[in-house]
Amino acid sequence: MKALLIDNSKEKPEMIPGEVPTPEPGEYELLVKIEATALNRADLLQKSGNYPPPEGASTILGLEMAGVVEETGPEVTRYDKGDEVFGLLPGGGYAEYCVIHEKMAMHIPENLSFEEAAAIPEVFLTAFQALKMLGNIKKNETVLIHAGASGVGTAAIQLANKVFNCRVITTAGRDEKLETCLKLGAELAINYKKQDFSKVIEKEAGPKSVDLIIDFVGAPYWENNIAILTMDGRLIYLSMLGGTGVENMNLLPILRKRLTIKGSTLRNRPAEYKMNLTSDFHSYAMDHIEEGIIRPVIHQVFDWHDVEQAHQMIKNNENTGKIILTGM
Amino acid sequence: MKALLIDNSKEKPEMIPGEVPTPEPGEYELLVKIEATALNRADLLQKSGNYPPPEGASTILGLEMAGVVEETGPEVTRYDKGDEVFGLLPGGGYAEYCVIHEKMAMHIPENLSFEEAAAIPEVFLTAFQALKMLGNIKKNETVLIHAGASGVGTAAIQLANKVFNCRVITTAGRDEKLETCLKLGAELAINYKKQDFSKVIEKEAGPKSVDLIIDFVGAPYWENNIAILTMDGRLIYLSMLGGTGVENMNLLPILRKRLTIKGSTLRNRPAEYKMNLTSDFHSYAMDHIEEGIIRPVIHQVFDWHDVEQAHQMIKNNENTGKIILTGM
Repeated sequence: MKALLIDNSKEKPEMIPGEVPTPEPGEYELLVKIEATALNRADLLQKSGNYPPPEGASTILGLEMAGVVEETGPEVTRYDKGDEVFGLLPGGGYAEYCVIHEKMAMHIPENLSFEEAAAIPEVFLTAFQALKMLGNIKKNETVLIHAGASGVGTAAIQLANKVFNCRVITTAGRDEKLETCLKLGAELAINYKKQDFSKVIEKEAGPKSVDLIIDFVGAPYWENNIAILTMDGRLIYLSMLGGTGVENMNLLPILRKRLTIKGSTLRNRPAEYKMNLTSDFHSYAMDHIEEGIIRPVIHQVFDWHDVEQAHQMIKNNENTGKIILTGM
Repeated sequence: MKALLIDNSKEKPEMIPGEVPTPEPGEYELLVKIEATALNRADLLQKSGNYPPPEGASTILGLEMAGVVEETGPEVTRYDKGDEVFGLLPGGGYAEYCVIHEKMAMHIPENLSFEEAAAIPEVFLTAFQALKMLGNIKKNETVLIHAGASGVGTAAIQLANKVFNCRVITTAGRDEKLETCLKLGAELAINYKKQDFSKVIEKEAGPKSVDLIIDFVGAPYWENNIAILTMDGRLIYLSMLGGTGVENMNLLPILRKRLTIKGSTLRNRPAEYKMNLTSDFHSYAMDHIEEGIIRPVIHQVFDWHDVEQAHQMIKNNENTGKIILTGM
């Protein structure tokens, strides 16, 4: 089958088209003809050799896909040949075919294209994990979502607002990104380059008014995050793109405000965890997706031959929402 | 009724015997003739004016008691006059009588004296909250309990080892305290004054080998605590007696190891939380207490007139286990 492979022969690694054996579905697996895959920042790290795939996973990039079931393993009960499915992958999305455990796959709702379906798994499951499993989100809470226009950010805003009926506050660095956040359901969108987010929140929502924070920034936001959290507040780290070193940290608010601080990535979780997560996400959010209340945010669709251009866009942090590859 | 009151007329506040009105039981409350109460570090803070009681609570010191039901409110169904009960109080233990919601009270098992029963609520419920509710302890994990010879420490060692079948590692500052920890079920007890606990654990149990830490020390242990935690490890703060300021903290392990860091006190939790906690503790641990597998650790029993001497003992950190007051 065709696949995009990493060419390490030049100074910087590059993606090049190649041929590899088509995978064979295991007992509980589906062989899927991929119609669309979506890009993730992790792809760039893996390309540069800094983020090896988990044991047993395909070494081909690509953490999610949408496509058509081509063949089913002997124990598969939920899907048939010809079904349109999408789901999370441990790797292998930048290819013509992939295999996926039937419990990791979801039926594509009628109102979604392959491109839209491919834009869902990684960001929505990551956001759902952060809000529900890690953040223990409860109805009507106030939730602060940093990097609100990122892929996970756009998913988290919608899930927090539409599924959990929460008041959502978000930060982003460009005015058009703030607009997107407001359209998706945020009540307040703060340009972190122009304003101190904690001061704006304190003024608009009150001091210590945030129940749950989803952060991707890390050290630079530590102090303001901790300050704005209320009693029993939770701070969830999905990334620390702004750095990890905090000078002169004060632990006392953790005790005084009974805070919870957690970090997590999704990729290195065991398969069983991801199956449960997929199932939970499905039961909480799929009806909202089918009704068009929640929609994936797509920045641009690229032909798979233009993958380098697409990678560059992510590297430059130019995208609001997901970047899709099609035409494998 | 008789009660110990705070005398602020001298340079340092002192406890003095006094007379106050006997409380009246509410609809769901018991009036209990107190036979024994136990001391807590919080008592000293409250005495010095630094730890005001929660709203609605008695201003009399004393967070736990054991005694005999003298009268029951009209809606009480679980207890009768003459029943021997013990339980957590939001205040009011240093007195002849107290009132307690029936859902906060527990029957005293036959094998326990009033002194022993009074030694249970605060430390065992605090330890249970930390291990189970906050720390999500699972069977066969490795648990590090700092200040293992403290009241909460002795309770946590026993609960972790006897109820949850965990491997318990503990720290303390004196050799006789280490002995106590080992007798209670710790597999490894480290004198933190003589050895770096994280190096000992690394040597004895392996690097990154601890699933759950219960800490009372705070900043001085931060780095070593984080270092010794394994994937999905949890660090629970019940106090930060050693300080709260950490210089040059690195957040990265929180993300990499998917850590959870939480802080909590028990006292300022709402009554409903404490009722649920009492009920959960009862169902998990009471059979172990009735069978004598878990026992409260009592350092010394004082007559209530010697309360100042008893307070001094806590202040000097001399006790291994609880200090009890009787004879009100």
